[in-house]
Amino acid sequence: MDMLWSGWGDPAKAAPLPDAVTGLLRDLLGVTPRVGGPAVLEEIAVPACPLTDAARAALTGCVGEAQVLTDAESRVRHTRGKSTPDLLRIRAGEVDDVPGAVVLPGSHDEVAAVLRACAQHTVSVVPFGGGTSVVGGLAPEGKRPFVALDLRRLDALLALDDVSRTATVQPGLRAPECERLLNERGWTLGHFPQSFEWASIGGFAAARSSGQASAGYGRFDEMVLGLTLATPEGVLVLGRAPRSAAGPDLRQLVLGSEGALGVITSVTVRIRPLPTSRIYEGWRFESFEAGAAALRRLAQDGPRPTVLRLSDETETFVGLAQPDGIGGSATGQSAGCMAIAGYEGTAADTADRRARARRVLLASGGEYAGEEPGDRWAHGRYNAPYLRDALLDAGAFAETLETAAFWSALPALYERVRRALTTTLTESGTPPLVMCHVSHVYENGASLYFTVVSAQGEDPVAHWAPAKRAANEAILAAGGTISHHHGVGTDHRDWYEREIGPVGVRALQALKAELDPAGVLSPGVLVPVR
Amino acid sequence: MDMLWSGWGDPAKAAPLPDAVTGLLRDLLGVTPRVGGPAVLEEIAVPACPLTDAARAALTGCVGEAQVLTDAESRVRHTRGKSTPDLLRIRAGEVDDVPGAVVLPGSHDEVAAVLRACAQHTVSVVPFGGGTSVVGGLAPEGKRPFVALDLRRLDALLALDDVSRTATVQPGLRAPECERLLNERGWTLGHFPQSFEWASIGGFAAARSSGQASAGYGRFDEMVLGLTLATPEGVLVLGRAPRSAAGPDLRQLVLGSEGALGVITSVTVRIRPLPTSRIYEGWRFESFEAGAAALRRLAQDGPRPTVLRLSDETETFVGLAQPDGIGGSATGQSAGCMAIAGYEGTAADTADRRARARRVLLASGGEYAGEEPGDRWAHGRYNAPYLRDALLDAGAFAETLETAAFWSALPALYERVRRALTTTLTESGTPPLVMCHVSHVYENGASLYFTVVSAQGEDPVAHWAPAKRAANEAILAAGGTISHHHGVGTDHRDWYEREIGPVGVRALQALKAELDPAGVLSPGVLVPVR
Repeated sequence: MDMLWSGWGDPAKAAPLPDAVTGLLRDLLGVTPRVGGPAVLEEIAVPACPLTDAARAALTGCVGEAQVLTDAESRVRHTRGKSTPDLLRIRAGEVDDVPGAVVLPGSHDEVAAVLRACAQHTVSVVPFGGGTSVVGGLAPEGKRPFVALDLRRLDALLALDDVSRTATVQPGLRAPECERLLNERGWTLGHFPQSFEWASIGGFAAARSSGQASAGYGRFDEMVLGLTLATPEGVLVLGRAPRSAAGPDLRQLVLGSEGALGVITSVTVRIRPLPTSRIYEGWRFESFEAGAAALRRLAQDGPRPTVLRLSDETETFVGLAQPDGIGGSATGQSAGCMAIAGYEGTAADTADRRARARRVLLASGGEYAGEEPGDRWAHGRYNAPYLRDALLDAGAFAETLETAAFWSALPALYERVRRALTTTLTESGTPPLVMCHVSHVYENGASLYFTVVSAQGEDPVAHWAPAKRAANEAILAAGGTISHHHGVGTDHRDWYEREIGPVGVRALQALKAELDPAGVLSPGVLVPVR
Repeated sequence: MDMLWSGWGDPAKAAPLPDAVTGLLRDLLGVTPRVGGPAVLEEIAVPACPLTDAARAALTGCVGEAQVLTDAESRVRHTRGKSTPDLLRIRAGEVDDVPGAVVLPGSHDEVAAVLRACAQHTVSVVPFGGGTSVVGGLAPEGKRPFVALDLRRLDALLALDDVSRTATVQPGLRAPECERLLNERGWTLGHFPQSFEWASIGGFAAARSSGQASAGYGRFDEMVLGLTLATPEGVLVLGRAPRSAAGPDLRQLVLGSEGALGVITSVTVRIRPLPTSRIYEGWRFESFEAGAAALRRLAQDGPRPTVLRLSDETETFVGLAQPDGIGGSATGQSAGCMAIAGYEGTAADTADRRARARRVLLASGGEYAGEEPGDRWAHGRYNAPYLRDALLDAGAFAETLETAAFWSALPALYERVRRALTTTLTESGTPPLVMCHVSHVYENGASLYFTVVSAQGEDPVAHWAPAKRAANEAILAAGGTISHHHGVGTDHRDWYEREIGPVGVRALQALKAELDPAGVLSPGVLVPVR
């Protein structure tokens, strides 16, 4: 099944907004219904394939004629990713970023051959896993023709070592299928980002994804033990041990490289026993500050829940702490901030950690809210992107952004980003609702995940741009990182440059020049073209 | 106090071998007493300082005349590191690797100025922390003059954030002083490698050190949250959050770079509350295999002790499981393999983990051996390098090497390395004693640490070389990494090249060329000069 071309996910799962939300949008944010629907896929004017006959022949030579798609629908379906501006533009029929072709390699060797062919014919190439980038990771810069390298045929579980507890998988394997293959054998990967239903293993690695159960299972980059990277100049095979002192950790150079240094063709990940017990529960705190202090205590001194998140007052009020129940809370839930704590493991382990965490949460001023908020969160955990589609349909604008910092920097980071978003959008005539939650915790810091909802305004893409810029400036000024789990892409690149400084940028450009001398790999994604 | 120039550590702590060991060496290995002592420091013929007047003036301009040392003793004391061949060569008065001068910068800016001056005058520069490298990390290749950049003046605790639990320290701070500064404030770094008494924070970072309590506190590279790197082309400041999706993790590129990409001028590390309870205990297993299975269970399913190590039958028999008691066990300890489990934390936490680990260890066939073996291990934990000096004095050869791999690869790795060492040294007429322990554990694998003792033979440096080469070949063939915690240096470089392959080497060379275009930073350390 293909993802909805103009939105998110399985079209059958689309759900209209509850009346309470429609009323809230109108009364609170002045949202007025949109006039006219999105463009019709079949009617979009897609430019002719810009590849030369020689380039096309070379690609066909690598993967076979059937695996080089140049039809309009395939190309539209590989245009950009799933950020809100991406969706608004594709809904408007804007396909200026359309790839010249979609190429579907069936092996590492075919990937390597395609990269060499692209280098030879100076055709850019953008790896495409689940197509879920929300940071412009799929939109190369410049006017040079490019192909989308769709990795869906590379979807095998290659090896499973149940002594070492590792699995080696191909990059095009989607997360649900990966879980299914592991679950059948008694294992789990434990990586459940909001994009879970569509995202691929290669994408998790290339963008340093982090999942909702990262408190227990870790980030994806912490799960990766080995990697194979195809580059135009040859292959890089990494990971002979979990940890090593043999030089810099080159795995950590591939992780987060977003297709700019090569194409990941296999990933060895750590796996864990499939949990037999899963409990999610809610805890209510008087304030975001009090809740954050409680989360910090658990992150620093344990016990560590598997899932741990905390919504601020606004997000709790609106009900986004449990996306399934959005709007419900506006009609009478009590105030404060809702945290979700989840425990996965054996029955004995979850009971033990839960009991010990309960003591810490009570001592930190938490009020137990029962399993119902946890169950609602778990049930609705992948629903937010569907909700966004419904909001866009209703004439609202909705987007998310995220960052991370050390614990002591979080309060100012929270305030500055909220203020930047609120001030910018209010000044441009669409006062927003800005919500936030602590989405991932570490001993030394945490991430903040913001959701912004407002009226769309005249031109919603142009409308959002200054607010996003202001948020990025606020993040840098407050000492945060420009992305905790979405990645850099072309959207964050200018701020990423400032985050790592000119020497960092030069280092990455030098690496890229060595591995990709023709500069065909996702140009402009991650670092500027030199 | 300076380290013993011709050996290890505080000269006052030198101790002769127990008679039992001398007897064992003679009877088992055919060790005969050495004739004549080491060279006399004052009599070593040190070549004149090879720096041009212009280069010397430039260095003096950077740090002041008093901080550029060219006297023979200072230069000898900065010649090579502390591997056994290093010691044998310096004892023989061989100073062909002597630096032209020792430069002692007092700030990041002075380090940066020295690097620029060295680039301008084409003088190589080798950072020098504790001087404890055992892999040739302090011996640059080629005949070009070089200076040792001794970082001892950069020894401050710059900042401590007790909310985020981070400390920022300068690279020349030695580990004991770092612990003292943190302990005074109620914190610990928790990094206790065997080189603890002399090694520096910068060295830990540059070489990806791992300490004896890594099961609980993690490796040094896992402790690092931020870094400042001075390069001839400018500064790299990294680490705005514990974890980030903003591109590749460039911190992990600096960690393990061994001075080849720049000089680390500050490190932000995570800190933990100073433990109020410390318990170390012994566990005896029937075989190395049974013991390793028990360690794997703890590493994979918990609870995780703070210290966890397992000696093989030979090491247990010889008594190296507790270096303080070497030789003692040969006179009657029971057979099997000794594991040490240690618990550090609050009294409640250590008691809880210890009780739960006890159940796992008993269920895995372990026999509790009481706290005495643990206390002896803890008491003697930094003594092995002193013991090596005594062994060298007694005419024996003693050296260590280490590797790591995934759990399923460990049995073959263990066998192949042992066989390689035993066969090579036996064939060359000095049958060795080869001992091993599991020194660090992870969910997905572990490290193996080998100790080799034999007679010295005619020319002990030449004697060891083929054995070391054979061990390196065995490590690569069995799928291990060429170093788990000692680093690459010039000693492992040729095997490191094969470990990361030609594309990996080119990537690092390209990085180096960008950050160090004159090629003055530790040339030949880590990667070959391009």
